[in-house]
Amino acid sequence: MLIENLSLNKQKLLLKLSKKKHRQEFGLFIIEGSKIVEESFNEAQVEFIVVLDKFKGLSLKDINIPIFKLSEKEFKKYSSLQNPEGILAVVKIPESKLLEDPKRILMLNDINDPGNLGTIIRTLDWFNFDALILQGDCVDPYNEKVVRSSMGSIFRLPIIKSQNALETFENYQNKNFELLGLSLNGTSNLQIENLKEKKLLLVFGSESHGIPSNQESQIENLYQIPKLGKAESLNLSVSVGIACNLFAKN
Amino acid sequence: MLIENLSLNKQKLLLKLSKKKHRQEFGLFIIEGSKIVEESFNEAQVEFIVVLDKFKGLSLKDINIPIFKLSEKEFKKYSSLQNPEGILAVVKIPESKLLEDPKRILMLNDINDPGNLGTIIRTLDWFNFDALILQGDCVDPYNEKVVRSSMGSIFRLPIIKSQNALETFENYQNKNFELLGLSLNGTSNLQIENLKEKKLLLVFGSESHGIPSNQESQIENLYQIPKLGKAESLNLSVSVGIACNLFAKN
Repeated sequence: MLIENLSLNKQKLLLKLSKKKHRQEFGLFIIEGSKIVEESFNEAQVEFIVVLDKFKGLSLKDINIPIFKLSEKEFKKYSSLQNPEGILAVVKIPESKLLEDPKRILMLNDINDPGNLGTIIRTLDWFNFDALILQGDCVDPYNEKVVRSSMGSIFRLPIIKSQNALETFENYQNKNFELLGLSLNGTSNLQIENLKEKKLLLVFGSESHGIPSNQESQIENLYQIPKLGKAESLNLSVSVGIACNLFAKN
Repeated sequence: MLIENLSLNKQKLLLKLSKKKHRQEFGLFIIEGSKIVEESFNEAQVEFIVVLDKFKGLSLKDINIPIFKLSEKEFKKYSSLQNPEGILAVVKIPESKLLEDPKRILMLNDINDPGNLGTIIRTLDWFNFDALILQGDCVDPYNEKVVRSSMGSIFRLPIIKSQNALETFENYQNKNFELLGLSLNGTSNLQIENLKEKKLLLVFGSESHGIPSNQESQIENLYQIPKLGKAESLNLSVSVGIACNLFAKN
């Protein structure tokens, strides 16, 4: 197989895609590492693949996608890893299509830690949630750190931006969703089994400020994960995991 | 209040304490930031405090602990933060005393991600676990990143090193503990309420390799968190959080 060098134009594109603005402009993002690139063949629309000239980690023989190569020195410019494996790909940002009859949706406010966001995307995929809504000032979900810690779940989970939390609440309440907020102001005595029968929009605040009060006052059910010891709070992605396990639709 | 400059000897000590070997040699570690330093006054044995010469974030007037100052340039040498708040302290590594009649203990194998370990320490503190056992090749729990993400819970949770997993199992089984492993080879149909009556040693493997097979064959109960969607696995600290919430002693 003869592989051409990556053109300067495409190199410029890679550089641009490290910025949110340009990811949105082009509708593209970068994935890196053989595992996620392999997953992308079935789960995403891949524009092209870039490999280190001596890359051997994955058989690319029968792949019907343009492949280009770079020298080690060049590759490192575009890699987000300290020790790059030697493969990355440019893929389309998936359309955020919701299933016809969604039952479990999570809304996050002002999440800024990319590792937490990626971990949450992976958790929602494990528990078969229908979508993630990002409200307020959130890190871009197609940021390379989010993508990496989502471990491929980024391809499968519809991600929706909300411009106005109260309108989003109303919109889902009109579709017979109940609102369930996770909050240190909540009670641990909710009727979990009753709630599991309903369609649920789970709402989380930021780790430092909780759910904004104008939202919290609109939420029918406020739950607090039982606190038995002394820590002031739980990490956000841990709280989301516990709530997903409690309230997932099985 | 007149505050002296930090002596060169103590500056050398700070540098040394960035290494595990020296933390063990001196039985000391570094905490950084006003929140955790303030908590340490009640929860740890503080050797001395170091502040940036113009630090004002915390009132240190009535504190009976030696305080030293450093210029901004010097302080940055010893800070583990990109934007240091201007306060750190050297504290004693707590003795790992177990309560008289422990009921919930978590054992981790080969954990190497400091953020995950700190998050797990915080989670165990929230759920009032009695201790954490570290088995195999683990990151040092007094590493600055672990300490930071533990959010003060590092002072409250006894942490024990295990040299031999099977001996540790036997030791706790002799104290009437049951072993409960979290594993992708486990079943989601365990009788959780029955198990909650018992003393439990929860065992986790590393995120990439799971529980070592010589351990897994000794574990009476293997549980898998119900998987409803497509992600291959959950993040380790998310799994620990879910298991703690399911099996905590309330």
